[in-house]
Amino acid sequence: MSLTNASPLDAAQAAKSASHVLATLSAEARNEALTTIHAGLAAARDDILAANARDLELARQAAADGTLSQSLVSRLDLGKTGKWEDMLRGILDVRGLDDPVGRATLRTRLDDGLELERVTCPIGVLLIIFEARPEVIANIAALAIKSGNAAILKGGKESTESFVAISRVISAALERTQVPNGAIQLVTTRDVIPQLLGLDRHIDLVIPRGGNELVRYIKNNTRIPVLGHADGLCAIYLEQSADPTTAAEVIVDSKTSYPAACNSLETLLVHDAALATLLPPIAAALAAKGVELRCDEASRAALQQHAPAVPTLAATADDFATEFLALTLAIKTVPSLAAAVAHINAHGSHHTDCILTSSAAQAEQFMAAVDSAGTYWNASTRFADGMRYGFGTEVGISTNKIHSRGPVGLEGLMIYKYKLRGHGQVSAVYGEGEGKRPFLHQRLL
Amino acid sequence: MSLTNASPLDAAQAAKSASHVLATLSAEARNEALTTIHAGLAAARDDILAANARDLELARQAAADGTLSQSLVSRLDLGKTGKWEDMLRGILDVRGLDDPVGRATLRTRLDDGLELERVTCPIGVLLIIFEARPEVIANIAALAIKSGNAAILKGGKESTESFVAISRVISAALERTQVPNGAIQLVTTRDVIPQLLGLDRHIDLVIPRGGNELVRYIKNNTRIPVLGHADGLCAIYLEQSADPTTAAEVIVDSKTSYPAACNSLETLLVHDAALATLLPPIAAALAAKGVELRCDEASRAALQQHAPAVPTLAATADDFATEFLALTLAIKTVPSLAAAVAHINAHGSHHTDCILTSSAAQAEQFMAAVDSAGTYWNASTRFADGMRYGFGTEVGISTNKIHSRGPVGLEGLMIYKYKLRGHGQVSAVYGEGEGKRPFLHQRLL
Repeated sequence: MSLTNASPLDAAQAAKSASHVLATLSAEARNEALTTIHAGLAAARDDILAANARDLELARQAAADGTLSQSLVSRLDLGKTGKWEDMLRGILDVRGLDDPVGRATLRTRLDDGLELERVTCPIGVLLIIFEARPEVIANIAALAIKSGNAAILKGGKESTESFVAISRVISAALERTQVPNGAIQLVTTRDVIPQLLGLDRHIDLVIPRGGNELVRYIKNNTRIPVLGHADGLCAIYLEQSADPTTAAEVIVDSKTSYPAACNSLETLLVHDAALATLLPPIAAALAAKGVELRCDEASRAALQQHAPAVPTLAATADDFATEFLALTLAIKTVPSLAAAVAHINAHGSHHTDCILTSSAAQAEQFMAAVDSAGTYWNASTRFADGMRYGFGTEVGISTNKIHSRGPVGLEGLMIYKYKLRGHGQVSAVYGEGEGKRPFLHQRLL
Repeated sequence: MSLTNASPLDAAQAAKSASHVLATLSAEARNEALTTIHAGLAAARDDILAANARDLELARQAAADGTLSQSLVSRLDLGKTGKWEDMLRGILDVRGLDDPVGRATLRTRLDDGLELERVTCPIGVLLIIFEARPEVIANIAALAIKSGNAAILKGGKESTESFVAISRVISAALERTQVPNGAIQLVTTRDVIPQLLGLDRHIDLVIPRGGNELVRYIKNNTRIPVLGHADGLCAIYLEQSADPTTAAEVIVDSKTSYPAACNSLETLLVHDAALATLLPPIAAALAAKGVELRCDEASRAALQQHAPAVPTLAATADDFATEFLALTLAIKTVPSLAAAVAHINAHGSHHTDCILTSSAAQAEQFMAAVDSAGTYWNASTRFADGMRYGFGTEVGISTNKIHSRGPVGLEGLMIYKYKLRGHGQVSAVYGEGEGKRPFLHQRLL
C-alpha cells in the first residue's frame, strides 16, 4: 500500500498496472498476502493505537467545540473493547472465504476442438470512499486483495493518522508478497477526489460508503459506474391477516434496533382492514420505545379512537419520501396490496421492503411485484446485511439495477471473461445453409 | 407498443409502471405475447413492406444526392431475400429460449424457518438506441418482452416509416395480451434523446447500438448505466511456435471476413522470433486479400527482406490506437508475451484478443493476463458474437467491466432480487456472544 503523493493520474495508472498482475496471481499468493498483513498489523498494535489516540484527541477537541458529533468520536476509537481483535479477525475471515477468482460459470462446445468458457475475474481498479471508522481500511484492503482487485482508498479525514499508520504497515507487509505495491493505495487529501472521478479509463468502479449526500455527489460527478445506495427508505406493509405478535415484534425491531441504519423501517403501510385491530397495539409498542408516529388521516383517526394514549402527529406528503434515520415513523393507510406495492415502487428507495401477512399468496405476490433488492415476508428489514446473509463480509449495500443488488460481498467485486480455445477455426466456414458448418453449441456446464 | 407523442417523462413513467406489471407476468403470458406479435406481423406483411418501400425511396434519393451511403440503403431493404422471414423467425427463436425470469441462483437457510433466496428478475426499463435496420425493432421488442423488461426504442431516422408500421402492428397485437401497452414504446424524434438520458429515476439501462460517436455521446450525457462498446480494437499476438497454416487462416479470417465489424482484427503483434519465418507468408496472404499493412520498423524490414513483393507502409503511433474498420492492419513487433499483453491492455479496447501459439502454457498465461471480454487461443476474433456463442441472440457486445461483458444475450438483461421468507424473526436476537442466537447459514443452493 502506498501513500499517494503522486498525481491522481499516476496513482490510477499504477493501480491499473498492479491490477493486471494481481488478476493473474494464484489464490495462495493472495491469501499469503492477507496472512502477512495480519501478522504485520498484530506486531504494530502499539504504534497504530498511538496514532489512533492522536486522531481521538483531535476529535474530542472538535466534539468539545461542537464541530463533531460524539457518536463519530466513539466510532473512531480503535482501542474500544474487541475492536482491534475484530479488525484482525476480519482479515483472516476474508482469507477463509472461497476464492471468487477463476470460477467457470459456463462452458460450451461450439464445435469439435472449439470450447468456450466463461470464468470469473476481478473487475480491475476500485475507488472506495469510506467513512472515518479506522478499522474499515484493513477490511477493504483484504476484500480487494482476496478478489484480485486493485483499490484506491479514501477514508474520512478524522481518521487520517490511524489510516496512515495502518497503511504503512500494510505497505511494508505487501513488500514481502507477490501482490504489487500499487495494488492498494491510500489517498489522504479530499481534493483529489474530483480528479479521480474523471479517470474512467483507469478506474472501473466507485464504491462510496457514506451518507446520501456523498453518494449523490459522486453519482453526479463521474462516468465511472457507482455501486451503492443513496437512500434506505424501507417500508413494511401490514396486511390484515398478519399475526399480531409477529407483526409487532418485526415492526419494532425494524424501526428501533438501529434507527440510523439504511435497512431500518421508515414507512409503515397499513391495510384499512387492519387499522382498528392490528395497528393500535403496534403503535403502543412503538410509542413505548420512543418512536414518533406521523400518521395519515385514517390511521391517526383509528389510533385516536382505539389507542388514545398513543401520541400521534399528522403526516405531511414529505414524510413518505423521507429517510428519517431516527425514531420517527410515517404511517399510511392503503386499500389493497396493489396500492401498497404501487406506493413502495413509487416512493421507496428499492432497498428492502417487507409484507406482514399469514397469506402465502399475498406474500408471493408482494415479493414478485415490489421492485427492491430485498423483498421480505414476515421478517425484519434489518436482516438486509452481508454478514446476516452469510456472505462473510460486505463492501456495501447496492440499490443499483445492474451488476449487484442488495448486500454485496466478494461476488459483487467480480466480473467474468470469455475464453475460447480452438485449433485454428475461422468464422467464415460456420453458419446455416449450403456449404456452411453448423455450430454444435453443446452445453458442458 | 405505443408511438410516443407524450413527453419523455410521461413515456418513461408509463414504461416504469408497465415494467412492474411485466415483471410479474408468467413465462406463458410473455411467450403468448410473442406469438401474437409474430402472427400480427405475418398478417401485415404487405403494409409493412409498403412503408419500407417509402423509406427506401427517400434513402435512394439521399444516396443519389450523396448524403447517404449505398450500404445503408441496402441495409434498409426489408424486401431483400430472406430478411422478412428471418425477422419473423427471430421472434419465435427468442420465444423458444429458456425463460430467464425467476431462476433461483442462491438459497440459504439463515435459521429454522428463515430462508433467503436470490432469484433473477428483469432490470426494469431499457432505453435502446439503434441503427436504421428495420428488422431490429422486432428483435429488440421480442428480447425485452421475453426478459420481462419494458423498453423505450429509438431507431435510426432513415427507417422511420418502417418502424412506425411495425410498431403499429406490435401495439395492436399487445392489446390482445397481458403485456401492458406502455411496456414497449417507440420514439421517433431524435430531439427527445437528451431528455430521456436525464430520466435516471425511471430508466435503468441505456443500450446504444451504433458507432463510436453515438456511444461516447451517450456515456458523456447520462447518469444512467450504459451497456455496450465504443470501440472494437482487437489484437492478435503471433507467437513463434504457432502453426503457420492455422495462423494464416485465423489472421485472414479475423481481418477480412467482415472488416467493418467490431470483432475484426486491427492490430497484429508479432514476436520478433516469428518475423522472418511466420510473418512473411501471412503478410502475403493478407496482401492478396487487399489488406494494407502498416508496419513498425522491425516488421517492415523483415517483410522487405523475406517477402519483397508485399507492399508495406510505415506505421505511426496512432495506427496502434485506431479501429480501422477497413482492410487496414497495423503490425508491431514485440519481444515477449508480457510485452504483447502490456500493449493490448494499454492500447486495446478490452473487446476480444487472441494468441496464436502451440504452447498451452503461453496461451493460458495470455488468456489470464489480457483484460478483455474475450481472450482466445488459436481461433478467429470474429467468433465474438452472441449467435456464435450459442446465446440465440444478442442485444450487443459489452466492453463494460461490470454487469455484462462480451456478447450480451437475455442473461445480460436480468438482475436479481433477494427474497427472505420468515416467521416473524427479528434481527436483534441474532449475533455472536452470550445470549445471542447464531445464524445457521446453511447453503441449500
